[in-house]
Amino acid sequence: MSGIWGNKIKISIFGESHGRAVGINIDGLKAGILLDIDYIKNEMRRRAPGDNEFSTPRKEKDEFVILSGFFEGRTTGAPLCAIIYNDDKKTEDYEKLKNTMRPSHADYTGYVKYNGFNDYRGGGHFSGRLTAPLVFAGAICKQILKAMGITIVSHIISIGEKKDKPFDSVNIEEDVLKIMENKDFPVLDQQSGFLMKEVIAGAKGQKDSVGGVVETAVLGIGPGIGEPFFDSVESILAHLIFSIPGVKGLEFGAGFDISRMHGSKANDEYYLDNGLVRTYSNNNGGILGGITDGMPIIFRTAFKPTPSIGRPQRTIDIETRKNVEIEIRGRHDPCIVPRAVPVVEAVTAIALLELITRSESKCI
Amino acid sequence: MSGIWGNKIKISIFGESHGRAVGINIDGLKAGILLDIDYIKNEMRRRAPGDNEFSTPRKEKDEFVILSGFFEGRTTGAPLCAIIYNDDKKTEDYEKLKNTMRPSHADYTGYVKYNGFNDYRGGGHFSGRLTAPLVFAGAICKQILKAMGITIVSHIISIGEKKDKPFDSVNIEEDVLKIMENKDFPVLDQQSGFLMKEVIAGAKGQKDSVGGVVETAVLGIGPGIGEPFFDSVESILAHLIFSIPGVKGLEFGAGFDISRMHGSKANDEYYLDNGLVRTYSNNNGGILGGITDGMPIIFRTAFKPTPSIGRPQRTIDIETRKNVEIEIRGRHDPCIVPRAVPVVEAVTAIALLELITRSESKCI
Amino acid sequence: MSGIWGNKIKISIFGESHGRAVGINIDGLKAGILLDIDYIKNEMRRRAPGDNEFSTPRKEKDEFVILSGFFEGRTTGAPLCAIIYNDDKKTEDYEKLKNTMRPSHADYTGYVKYNGFNDYRGGGHFSGRLTAPLVFAGAICKQILKAMGITIVSHIISIGEKKDKPFDSVNIEEDVLKIMENKDFPVLDQQSGFLMKEVIAGAKGQKDSVGGVVETAVLGIGPGIGEPFFDSVESILAHLIFSIPGVKGLEFGAGFDISRMHGSKANDEYYLDNGLVRTYSNNNGGILGGITDGMPIIFRTAFKPTPSIGRPQRTIDIETRKNVEIEIRGRHDPCIVPRAVPVVEAVTAIALLELITRSESKCI
Amino acid sequence: MSGIWGNKIKISIFGESHGRAVGINIDGLKAGILLDIDYIKNEMRRRAPGDNEFSTPRKEKDEFVILSGFFEGRTTGAPLCAIIYNDDKKTEDYEKLKNTMRPSHADYTGYVKYNGFNDYRGGGHFSGRLTAPLVFAGAICKQILKAMGITIVSHIISIGEKKDKPFDSVNIEEDVLKIMENKDFPVLDQQSGFLMKEVIAGAKGQKDSVGGVVETAVLGIGPGIGEPFFDSVESILAHLIFSIPGVKGLEFGAGFDISRMHGSKANDEYYLDNGLVRTYSNNNGGILGGITDGMPIIFRTAFKPTPSIGRPQRTIDIETRKNVEIEIRGRHDPCIVPRAVPVVEAVTAIALLELITRSESKCI
Repeated sequence: MSGIWGNKIKISIFGESHGRAVGINIDGLKAGILLDIDYIKNEMRRRAPGDNEFSTPRKEKDEFVILSGFFEGRTTGAPLCAIIYNDDKKTEDYEKLKNTMRPSHADYTGYVKYNGFNDYRGGGHFSGRLTAPLVFAGAICKQILKAMGITIVSHIISIGEKKDKPFDSVNIEEDVLKIMENKDFPVLDQQSGFLMKEVIAGAKGQKDSVGGVVETAVLGIGPGIGEPFFDSVESILAHLIFSIPGVKGLEFGAGFDISRMHGSKANDEYYLDNGLVRTYSNNNGGILGGITDGMPIIFRTAFKPTPSIGRPQRTIDIETRKNVEIEIRGRHDPCIVPRAVPVVEAVTAIALLELITRSESKCI
Repeated sequence: MSGIWGNKIKISIFGESHGRAVGINIDGLKAGILLDIDYIKNEMRRRAPGDNEFSTPRKEKDEFVILSGFFEGRTTGAPLCAIIYNDDKKTEDYEKLKNTMRPSHADYTGYVKYNGFNDYRGGGHFSGRLTAPLVFAGAICKQILKAMGITIVSHIISIGEKKDKPFDSVNIEEDVLKIMENKDFPVLDQQSGFLMKEVIAGAKGQKDSVGGVVETAVLGIGPGIGEPFFDSVESILAHLIFSIPGVKGLEFGAGFDISRMHGSKANDEYYLDNGLVRTYSNNNGGILGGITDGMPIIFRTAFKPTPSIGRPQRTIDIETRKNVEIEIRGRHDPCIVPRAVPVVEAVTAIALLELITRSESKCI
Repeated sequence: MSGIWGNKIKISIFGESHGRAVGINIDGLKAGILLDIDYIKNEMRRRAPGDNEFSTPRKEKDEFVILSGFFEGRTTGAPLCAIIYNDDKKTEDYEKLKNTMRPSHADYTGYVKYNGFNDYRGGGHFSGRLTAPLVFAGAICKQILKAMGITIVSHIISIGEKKDKPFDSVNIEEDVLKIMENKDFPVLDQQSGFLMKEVIAGAKGQKDSVGGVVETAVLGIGPGIGEPFFDSVESILAHLIFSIPGVKGLEFGAGFDISRMHGSKANDEYYLDNGLVRTYSNNNGGILGGITDGMPIIFRTAFKPTPSIGRPQRTIDIETRKNVEIEIRGRHDPCIVPRAVPVVEAVTAIALLELITRSESKCI
Repeated sequence: MSGIWGNKIKISIFGESHGRAVGINIDGLKAGILLDIDYIKNEMRRRAPGDNEFSTPRKEKDEFVILSGFFEGRTTGAPLCAIIYNDDKKTEDYEKLKNTMRPSHADYTGYVKYNGFNDYRGGGHFSGRLTAPLVFAGAICKQILKAMGITIVSHIISIGEKKDKPFDSVNIEEDVLKIMENKDFPVLDQQSGFLMKEVIAGAKGQKDSVGGVVETAVLGIGPGIGEPFFDSVESILAHLIFSIPGVKGLEFGAGFDISRMHGSKANDEYYLDNGLVRTYSNNNGGILGGITDGMPIIFRTAFKPTPSIGRPQRTIDIETRKNVEIEIRGRHDPCIVPRAVPVVEAVTAIALLELITRSESKCI
């Protein structure tokens, strides 16, 4: 079941880092949706490895081919499957490492789970490359949400110890959105962004890597979306967010900070604003009882540092069962956070479209 | 779909705070499991409102009746349904509040979602009382896991600003487990526990409430459990953890702290310990690529303060559409965290049994 | 997973013939539906064992208790759970048979599957009594469908070798519907019904039993409901129909007869009837490519004879592993078909509401 | 949800008759299974249109490309996706028919469901071509079942009015299996086969088509597989069988005939045969209470005649909303039954592997 998710919008992913292709089959899209292919390409580009200091020089073109469910520019209602061929393979880089388990990668856990039959090259099915089809699917869902007036926006709120200012959780301005959308390194405060980039460059210089946190807001979503208990907005979002490789924490609204508050401060009091129900604060991140309350959905996703680092590390050889040392050469991002931004947005879009579609159809 | 979860171990909950009963139907339990009814009763007691300073004086007996799937002391393999009758109803307390939306409760979101037809009494289906059947199901799953050598243990790591020391993530001693199990207010450091209780008493004295964080460890789980991507251990656990009312954050291993680390510190290096694969650190919380690596699973769950507080709050009347004020009288916990501990453990047990059962049955 | 079904309208059944109660939890009903309790009671009565010659003298009252999801006469949107207590237990009748496997019952297969831990009394979870909660859920779904203008009607088309005339598949008249609804033994041709009853009486007189076929029509369902392939109307209906104990065959439209036709006769040619698309014939039973075409849905369900017969039969003792003989005493229907009619209609209603609800919510 | 099925062995299909490719993603296969590619190719060939008198001259090569989940000759445990490119397109044949609804095809129902946005060419996603990926997946499942000692075998039991003799439901000999496996037109009685082929040739000569019935047996499956109620063997098999285009009926064991029997004849009495539990007859088709009893599973699937016939037919133009006439030219099978045999076997294999895998993993 590793690769299938959803109830109304079902996605089914496949592929390995060094296999023929990675891809995704999307089931449940309404017929007749005009797809903006350039928009999808731009989303793919945001995730693709670039040529700046933050990302691997590996040049994946990430060009997708739609195999089905798309006819004369529109969705047909049938499953829409897209694949992305793998073409820049340096398989031999990885074969040497076959039995040397890279620390904090899935080499060891994949070996155990699949009895050594997993495709180990470049992480195989565990590779971050599998996020490319997620971004493809997310780009379609984002278009559909946008047509409903729903926008998803993110910024990098921290890299290592360096922090950006947070979103104003009750009032995110329109022009902020537009600025964020066209940035490869989205931050609210440019000076903070400069310091964050320095942290990444520093890590890279030391053959090291660094983690960070992405803050995401969903604007324009009305109240009443989601379910109590097992299909709460938090549950559904968390399910997909934690399926992104490298995610280790997730908090909604004030998150861990709310646990340190008293109720009198934490509670989001209501008021009517020209007939519209709003809250003075938004410590619950727009979700109460698992259901949206009409305020922006706010959450933060914590990413660990890229596990691939050039420094020597202690590990084991799984075949000889001996303690050994490893130095990972290859080409790796010193920080995956900038490329993770569109991935977080993509799964957010998929999750929300799923929830909205479910909410639409409670039977009469 | 709000109330059904799972694939191998399917649970289906129902009930409202002031209806006839709350309950759960559990599908997928193997036939022939001898149930320790006293153990289940004790788990229910841990969650039930008590008579100490931390919990509501409302006396729910939480006595369960097993309706099916249980015969001559053992599971039959057929669905096991249990119900808990509601018997201490003060419905009139709530009727007065019918149209006055309690801040940070699900009154408003439930009203919108269900077009005003939801059972509003005591939060209705959104009530924390629905966690009683979860604890029932969790107690069965914990027994089954225990027979496999898997233990789940938690402590309160913070209340407000007061903190307990964290678990030693690579080495949790057996006697720690036993001590935690019999405590109503489980902490590792007794002095910290004393300070936390003071915080709760202080909040109560001010007609206020306070939040906190629960830290949980799963011991004895072998490597290879879980799936890449959508059914990662983190995804499945997060799905259920975020379905607990009041949860606003979740982090695995070093969690948000790992985002501030460099890879050279964050990576969990391997070594062989008498043939057993272990890691020197456990910043990934026992999970890599969504799959267990054999180290303890460690995670922390952030709870918001109880939204019901005695102080006046600003809100709206949903019928008259006017700004009003509310003072919640009733009887409420100043802090739900102590009673949430067995709930976190229960859903953890359900999630892990689901994952283990899935892993067992990859087909040949 | 034995007891949970559905995607939008999720049902979860539980109970054994001689346990405390049987019941069902229904998830996914819209809030605010006014339930006609008398209608539900009447549907339950149609399935309940009566005092005529066709059914067991066992007097089950089949009185249901709604535990949740129902408030002030209406659904709340939360899971609606109802239970029916078991009160007329003659457990000792069954204990004697514990190890003697009744032919064509599930005694042996249940024993193997559950390693002998199943509740064997009266068939346990395999009992036809579990169809009572299905009829409860179906009665709610039928009400909802009726409000949409959709009617489900059935008649007994054969008992043993005796046949009723079939429905006119392109034109079922309104008054036929009304006549069927109030009958315990619904047939189109009264003389045929008389002969069928004679067959049943004859079987009863010989301590034997007899099977039969139910024909069902769904009227008023528009075109466009259903999905290609795995969620075709036929697939979804078949899934639930074959979950009814005793069903061994199912055919849509002309069914097995269509396999004997040439295309030129089998094809349902279209014409416009005052702007409405209709077909001259209805050999496809209102379904093409898994999707409704607006003509009546027509299908026939074949039931085997009640396996419980008073005659001596050869079988085995599962404990002593010896060939033995069995004479089933107890009280049993000589023919389950009349009581099966409301069960077929109930699962049809559940399946169609599921499909209609899915169709409503293809996302934009 | 049209294209996703399963719980343990999840399949997700995609594609249209005249799009780029059709394909399937299979999730849940155990790692390390050695695939016999030649066996898969042979199964594909059985379904592919041939050059004999029964099938369309359209030459689809049906060459599959495995994109993922397959490494060094074995499954990796990750999703296995395979595609089959479409290369022999005569799109213009179909464009002319765009608005002329072919009787008994899914043109009209697809048009309504997808608001006219469906890919209409060659039936689009409704095309029988989508059964090619099903046969691919089935061939893998058949291999896995074969390694467990489970064999699936079918023959054509009738074409039009001409009948083959049925399987001996209690004793199917090994050499019968081998003979069936290598036949393009599998029948038990060669003379019957000759008459059936004449019926097909006759229909073809009259620009007509004809239907038929396939009988299938599953041998070597032990008792205890399946579930009561919603996941009965009959329910799961029926779900997939009725998803095959053209299926209109399905019966297990004696099927519709059992409805005409008395219990004393219908009941399958048990006996011990050298310690093995067997039944003297097999009117229940190897399934009791939804669970296998160890006897062969026997069922029959009724196919309608190919809807595409060369004769003039009455229909409507969906754009002009007028009654019109249609003569379908193109190239079409006069009888799909021979090519349907491997499709029935494929979905049977998928369904059984799903059920067996579920049964293996009831948790302890």
